[in-house]
Amino acid sequence: MGLSDVRGDEGMWIFNDLPRKLLQERYGFTPSNDWAEHIMKSSLRFNSGGSGSFVSSQGLVLTNHHVGAETLHKLSTPENNYYRDGFYAGTLEEEIPAPDEELNQLVEIEDVTERVNAAVKAEMSPGEAFAARNAVIAEIEKESFDRTGLRSNVVTLYGGGRYHLYRYQRYTDVRLVWAPEAAAAFFGGDADNFEYPRYCLDACLFRVYVDGKPAELEHHLAWSKNGAEDGELVFVSGNPGRTNRIHTVAALEHQRDVQLPDRLNIIRRLEIALQQFSLDGPEARRRGQDDLFSVQNSRKALTGMLRGLQDPLLMEAKRREELALKSALQEDERFTSYLSAWEAIAAAQQEKKRLSKESFRVYSTLFGIARHLVRLAEEDQKPNAERLPEYRESGRPSLEQQLFSTAPIYADLEQVKLAESLENAVEQMGVDSLLFRELLDGKNPQQRGAELIQGTELFDVEKRRELAEGGSEAIEASSDPLVRFARQLDEHSRRIRKQLDEINEIEQQMYAKISDALFALRGTSTYPDATFTLRLAFGTVKSYEEQGQRIPPWTDLSGAFAHEKHHGAADPWQLPESWHEKRDALDLSTPFNFVCTADIIGGNSGSPVVNKEGELVGLIFDGNIHSLTSDYIYTDIVARAVSVHSSAIREVLANIYGAERIVQELGK
Amino acid sequence: MGLSDVRGDEGMWIFNDLPRKLLQERYGFTPSNDWAEHIMKSSLRFNSGGSGSFVSSQGLVLTNHHVGAETLHKLSTPENNYYRDGFYAGTLEEEIPAPDEELNQLVEIEDVTERVNAAVKAEMSPGEAFAARNAVIAEIEKESFDRTGLRSNVVTLYGGGRYHLYRYQRYTDVRLVWAPEAAAAFFGGDADNFEYPRYCLDACLFRVYVDGKPAELEHHLAWSKNGAEDGELVFVSGNPGRTNRIHTVAALEHQRDVQLPDRLNIIRRLEIALQQFSLDGPEARRRGQDDLFSVQNSRKALTGMLRGLQDPLLMEAKRREELALKSALQEDERFTSYLSAWEAIAAAQQEKKRLSKESFRVYSTLFGIARHLVRLAEEDQKPNAERLPEYRESGRPSLEQQLFSTAPIYADLEQVKLAESLENAVEQMGVDSLLFRELLDGKNPQQRGAELIQGTELFDVEKRRELAEGGSEAIEASSDPLVRFARQLDEHSRRIRKQLDEINEIEQQMYAKISDALFALRGTSTYPDATFTLRLAFGTVKSYEEQGQRIPPWTDLSGAFAHEKHHGAADPWQLPESWHEKRDALDLSTPFNFVCTADIIGGNSGSPVVNKEGELVGLIFDGNIHSLTSDYIYTDIVARAVSVHSSAIREVLANIYGAERIVQELGK
Repeated sequence: MGLSDVRGDEGMWIFNDLPRKLLQERYGFTPSNDWAEHIMKSSLRFNSGGSGSFVSSQGLVLTNHHVGAETLHKLSTPENNYYRDGFYAGTLEEEIPAPDEELNQLVEIEDVTERVNAAVKAEMSPGEAFAARNAVIAEIEKESFDRTGLRSNVVTLYGGGRYHLYRYQRYTDVRLVWAPEAAAAFFGGDADNFEYPRYCLDACLFRVYVDGKPAELEHHLAWSKNGAEDGELVFVSGNPGRTNRIHTVAALEHQRDVQLPDRLNIIRRLEIALQQFSLDGPEARRRGQDDLFSVQNSRKALTGMLRGLQDPLLMEAKRREELALKSALQEDERFTSYLSAWEAIAAAQQEKKRLSKESFRVYSTLFGIARHLVRLAEEDQKPNAERLPEYRESGRPSLEQQLFSTAPIYADLEQVKLAESLENAVEQMGVDSLLFRELLDGKNPQQRGAELIQGTELFDVEKRRELAEGGSEAIEASSDPLVRFARQLDEHSRRIRKQLDEINEIEQQMYAKISDALFALRGTSTYPDATFTLRLAFGTVKSYEEQGQRIPPWTDLSGAFAHEKHHGAADPWQLPESWHEKRDALDLSTPFNFVCTADIIGGNSGSPVVNKEGELVGLIFDGNIHSLTSDYIYTDIVARAVSVHSSAIREVLANIYGAERIVQELGK
Repeated sequence: MGLSDVRGDEGMWIFNDLPRKLLQERYGFTPSNDWAEHIMKSSLRFNSGGSGSFVSSQGLVLTNHHVGAETLHKLSTPENNYYRDGFYAGTLEEEIPAPDEELNQLVEIEDVTERVNAAVKAEMSPGEAFAARNAVIAEIEKESFDRTGLRSNVVTLYGGGRYHLYRYQRYTDVRLVWAPEAAAAFFGGDADNFEYPRYCLDACLFRVYVDGKPAELEHHLAWSKNGAEDGELVFVSGNPGRTNRIHTVAALEHQRDVQLPDRLNIIRRLEIALQQFSLDGPEARRRGQDDLFSVQNSRKALTGMLRGLQDPLLMEAKRREELALKSALQEDERFTSYLSAWEAIAAAQQEKKRLSKESFRVYSTLFGIARHLVRLAEEDQKPNAERLPEYRESGRPSLEQQLFSTAPIYADLEQVKLAESLENAVEQMGVDSLLFRELLDGKNPQQRGAELIQGTELFDVEKRRELAEGGSEAIEASSDPLVRFARQLDEHSRRIRKQLDEINEIEQQMYAKISDALFALRGTSTYPDATFTLRLAFGTVKSYEEQGQRIPPWTDLSGAFAHEKHHGAADPWQLPESWHEKRDALDLSTPFNFVCTADIIGGNSGSPVVNKEGELVGLIFDGNIHSLTSDYIYTDIVARAVSVHSSAIREVLANIYGAERIVQELGK
C-alpha cells in the first residue's frame, strides 16, 4: 500500500475486497463474484515458494520451471538429471511423485479481526500482547482445522490492521508431468535474469492426485486460443511474497543501511562458496545448482532493491508522501495521537539494528531439521495456544511433510552451507564470544561445520522419526552432534527471536494505526502489503522506453534463435538440441515472452495471467530490472512483469516435446 | 619473525644479514659474499607486484605469467589477445615494449638506523615523530638519489627496529619476449589455485633494454642442467610483500575481527560484479580478466589467512608465544618497561577499528590518477621533506611513469569498479553522511559512478600531463568531474590517513621496542617481517602428507595431460591446442611443478629458486593451501612453496613454442 493514492495499475488486491470501482472506472470491467471465485479456486500456492494454476479438470498444474526446480533437483540423480535435461511423462503412469511438494488452494476467507483484536488489551506489554494475539490465532486456526479439516491460517493484513482466516485445500500427492531442459527454461542464465527482452520457456507441469487418482476439479483455467493483445487488460492471480510499501522512511532506512547490506554480504559469500563447490565437476555442479540459482537470484533482486533505496530521489519521494500523510493527520483531531506511530517505528529500527548484530541465519537443510526436532520436543509440552506458530497443531501435517521428506540431502553441499553460515556468524559476533566458544568446540567454523555434518545421522529419515516420536527425552539423550549443536544454539536463538517478536508486535500495532488512518482518510481504496497469500493484480500488456528505445511488449520464438546467435551460442545462451532438431516444425512467429504493468513481486513466479474471460493467456516468471524497487514503491513507467505467452507453451509442447496427450488435455 | 625461535626452514632473510651460522649447522653450507651478491644482483622486483630474475647476460628476465599478466593485458587488443593466446617474438625486433613496467635491481644496502632514530626525539607526539621521521627519510633518499641517480628507498625493518637504505637500478624499457597461453599458465584456474599437485606453466619472459639495446649484465642466473633433487637445499630470492609475524595477539585479533572480514566483503562484491561484467561477452571477459583474476586470488588467499586466525589452536599458540616472551622480559630488568608495548598496541587496534568505519578504498585506475594529480599539485608546494612519501622527489620518475602510462583503460570496466567501490563505501558510512551527500550529488552510487567515468577526460594522457604541469592552479580550475570528485574526497581521505599514520607511528615505536628485546634476548637469529624488498629464503625439496596420503614433491608433463583427462577437458582444465599438437615431441617424464619448504608469501611470485651453485632450478608461482597462514606463522609440516621446474620451461620452449633462439640464449 503506497502512502499516497494508488497509482496506475498498482495493487495486490485481496479476493474478498477487489477494486471493483477502480476497474469499472478505468477499464469498464467489473469482476463478478463467480468470476472471482473461479480465478481464486483455479489458483495455487506452492509452499516451497511460488504460485501456479490448475489448467485442466484432471488436476494438471502449470507453474514456472524455476518454481518446480527444487522438485526437479530432488528427483534427479547422477544418472537422470531432469533439471538439466527435462522430463516428459508419456502416460499418467510415468508421472513421478515429488518427495515433499505441498500445493495450497484457497477456498475460503473469513474476517476474524474483531476476535483477534478483542484478545489484546490496551494495558498489555508488547510481550503480553504478542502472546495473547498468538494464543487467539492458534485457537481460531485449531477450531477451523478441527471443524473443516482444511489448512487454516490467520493472515495479518495491513501490517496488523486486519486479520483474515484463510482456509486451504492441501494437495500433497504432486507428480511431475513435463519440464523442458534448463537451457530453454533459463535461457540466458544469470546474465539475462531480470532483463528484457527475454526468451525463456520458464514453465513446467505437475499433476495433483487425490487417493492415488488425478484430482477431479470444479475449477480450472481454460487455455486462451490466442493470448492477450497489445493494450489488453489482464489479471495476475498469485501469491506475492512480501512488500514493504506501508513502511515508514525510518523502516526503509533500516532496510537500506542494515538489513539489505547484511543479507547481501552473506548471500555473496554463499554465491562464491557455491561456485567454488561447483568447480569440482559435473556432479557437484548438479548438486549445487538449485542453491546457486537461488542465491544468484536473491543477490540480483536484493541489489536492485538496495540501489533503489540508495537513490536519493526515490527516498525523497517517500519522505514527501510520509509528510503529506502526517500533515493530513495533524489536521484531523481524530488522528493527531496517531503521529506517535512514526516515532515508535523509528525507535523499533534502532532495536532491530542492535539485534542484527546477534542474529544470523544458518543455511543448512540438516541444521533446519535438527532445530525443528529440538523445538518440536519443547513446544509440544506446551498448550497449543502458547507454542511458536510453526509448531501449532493446525500446521502439523505440513511440518511433518517437510521433516520426514525423503528428498536427497548431499553431505558435501550441506558442509559448505553450514560452514559458510557459521563463518559469517562468527565474523559478525566474534570468534571469542561466549556463544561461539561453546558452539565451535575448539575448531574454526570450517572444521566445525565439517565435523557436524560428518557426524550427524539425520540424513536417515527413520532417525528423524525416532527423535520426533521420542520427544524431549529422546532429544536430551541424543548424542547426534547436530542435534546437540542445535540445542546449544537454541537458547540464544529463542532469546533473539523473542526480542524480535516483541519489536514486531510494536511495529504491528503502529502500522495498524497508520492503516486505520489510511482507511478513514481514503476508504478501502488501498490494498495490504504482500503476505505470500493469494492476491489479484491487474494491468495491461504494454511496451516501454529504455534509453530512448521502445521495447516491444512481445518477443517471439524466432527471437530466441536470433538471441542465441547474437551470443555465439555460448553458455548460457545455448538452446537445447531438441529446439534445433525441431526448429522447422515450429511456427517461429509464435509470441514467446511478453510484459504487462501488473503489480507483482517474488512469490508471484508461476502465477497465471488471465484475461477478462478468465482464460489463461500467460505465465508470470520474472520482473524486469526496473521492477526491483517494487518492494516499497510501484511504478509503471518502465517497470514490467514478464510472462511466458500461453501460445508459446502450447506450440513447443506440441512441436518440440511431442506432448500430444497434454495438448489435448489443455484443449478440453 | 616468529616470537619464538625460528622453526624449521623459517625465514625471509635480508641479504646484508644472512643466516650463515644456521645454514652451516643445518646444511653444511655457508653462502659467500660473492655468492650472495651474485644472487642479489640477478634478482628483480616487478614494481607492479612480483619478483623475477635475470637469466641471460643479454637482459632476459624470467617471471610468472601471472606477474606478467598485467602487461600482457595492457598489450592486448580485441584482435590480439596475448594473455589468452600467448606470444613469442621470433627475433629481437619483434619483442614488444610494455607500456609502464618498472623493474628494480637491488645493488646496494646501507644501514641508516642511527640517522633516522636521531631525528626522532623522545618528547615528540606521535604526529611530530611521524613527521620528523618522514622528513629525515626524505632527506636521506634525496641525497642518495642526487648522488647516485639510483632509485633510493629507506626501508623500515623489524617493524621500526632498523632502517636500511636500498639503492636500485631501475629498468623501464621492458619488452615482452614470450608468454604461453593462459590455459597452460593458469591450467586448472581458480579451482586449482593454491592447490597441489599442480601442472602450471606459470612462466613468461621479458627482456630489459638500456638505450634501446638489450641490457648487458654482469650478473645473471645460469640455467641448471637437471634442476634440484628430492631433499636438496634450495634458495628463493624474491620480494615477499608483507607478513605480520611480529604482530601481537591484539593486532592479529584486529586482523581477524575487522580488517580481513572488511576486505573480504569488498573483494567478494568486486568478484561478483566483475563476473557479471564478463558475462557480457568475449571482449568484456578479456577486459575484465586481469582484475577478476586478481580479486579471485586475493579472495582465496585472504580467506585462507582468516580461517587460520579463526582456528583457536593457532591463536592459542600465538598467545603462548607472547606470554613466554613477556615472561622473559619481566625477568630481565632491562626490559620490564617494554611490557607496556603490548598494551599500547592493543589500544592502537581500538583506534584502527574506529577508523575502519570511515576508511575505504576506491578500486578505479582513473580515480587513482585523479587523486595523484590532485595531491601532486598540493604536495609539490611543500618542501620535499614534508611531502607524503609517494610524492618525494626520489620517487618522481616511478610516479610519472605510472601517471602518464599509455596502457589502455576501459570505460565500462572503470565504471563497474568505481561504482562498486562507492556503493561499498556508502554502505559502510551511510548514504546520508555529510561526506556522501556531497560526493554523490543527488544520485545513487551506480548512477554517480557512471556519470563520473562518462564525464572525465583523464583517459587522455595529454590531459593528464596538462593538469600535472599546470599545478594547483590547473587543478583548481579543472571542471573534469573526476578531478573535482577527487578534490571533494581528499580532505576526508587525508584526515583519515593522518590518523592512521599516527597510529602506525605508535605501533612502529612499540614494535621497535619488541624487536630490541628480541635482538637482546636472541641475538640476530631473527629476520624482519616482509616489506616487498629482496629477501633470501631457504628450504628443501620435500613431499608431505595430506589426509593420510603422501603428496610427491614433483609432478611431470604427463601428469598435466592426465589431469586434463580426469576433468573431462572441461574449462579450466583444457590444455591449449599447441600442447596437444606437440605432445609427441615432448619428453613427458620431464618434471613440471615441485614443492619445497622455503618461506614465501605473495610478492614472491616469479622468484627464482636456485641451488647452492647459484643456478636456476625453479620458478616460484604459488603456495599450497596450507601455506596461507604464513602471513603470521611459518610451518613446514604441510605448508609448501610451489614452483615451475626449470627443466619443464626449457622443454616446452624447445618442443612446443619453437623458441630455439631463447633456448640457445639460456644455455650460454
